[in-house]
Amino acid sequence: MIPAEVLYTLLVQPLTVEAFAPYGDVIAARGEASTINQGMGGRCSDLARVDVSAEGGRAAISVIRCVPESLPIHLRLMERHPLGSQAFVPLNGQRYVVVVAPAGAPPAREDLRAFLCRGDQGVNYHRGTWHHPMLALDRDCDFAEFHRAGPGVNCDETPLPCAVVVNL
Amino acid sequence: MIPAEVLYTLLVQPLTVEAFAPYGDVIAARGEASTINQGMGGRCSDLARVDVSAEGGRAAISVIRCVPESLPIHLRLMERHPLGSQAFVPLNGQRYVVVVAPAGAPPAREDLRAFLCRGDQGVNYHRGTWHHPMLALDRDCDFAEFHRAGPGVNCDETPLPCAVVVNL
Repeated sequence: MIPAEVLYTLLVQPLTVEAFAPYGDVIAARGEASTINQGMGGRCSDLARVDVSAEGGRAAISVIRCVPESLPIHLRLMERHPLGSQAFVPLNGQRYVVVVAPAGAPPAREDLRAFLCRGDQGVNYHRGTWHHPMLALDRDCDFAEFHRAGPGVNCDETPLPCAVVVNL
Repeated sequence: MIPAEVLYTLLVQPLTVEAFAPYGDVIAARGEASTINQGMGGRCSDLARVDVSAEGGRAAISVIRCVPESLPIHLRLMERHPLGSQAFVPLNGQRYVVVVAPAGAPPAREDLRAFLCRGDQGVNYHRGTWHHPMLALDRDCDFAEFHRAGPGVNCDETPLPCAVVVNL
């Protein structure tokens, strides 16, 4: 049991395009939509910076299932994908949490940010952005994952700089 | 007003991997998931055939919003993308309908199939699959779209072979 006083607590902020911009993109309708589908719909084009071609990579679609975390969430490690972007779109309309830090050197605790994401928002991590594995909150949460597949080592992990918990 | 007797009625079937295989892929957890995220999740890898590189294409992420249709749904046209696959994942957990026909010559009415998709299922149309624009049912439905962007003409449209309605 780690004494509470040595834990660094990270509070979540709402996921917005602006706040998340240093780390990646928010996948949700925004701005002016162009009319499509014979007037029965609108389209917000090219909302995310997809980057999957490095070293012979290709775009792929997978699904991940995340078991819900208990609050406060004790973070485990941070990871990054040096060869591609990685996007997640929730499949169950469930809210979830992402924890990120800027690309570059392994993050100091002051670099960490936690975002509470609505169930109708996806996220796209830019290539190299440090991030915690996805954090489901209330029940099992499936995500469609749009990512790079291909040769090369595309996952670096780093320990956290100290014990960190996330709370709502 | 078209007399009811000249309408061809298409009934929906549930979206399953097997039934949809001639047209594309279902994006939903299935089969054995490999353990990820320090035991807090599983991964079903590479569920969809992503095909976006033709003629200098790249992968892109957009969002579309669909206005709900009234039942029975009067179909408007079919379209296909000759240069790439196109995937949709619902962002609101809403059910929806897709109408498809095999790649190749413009579809006869017997070629058409309608699928009722749950809100936790996405679809990936293979390159060239004929499909109706997405059909929301109960309320506005946003979809994350994972598609090809790039040079070239990537949308062909064809009229329906007769008046067609879809009913549940």
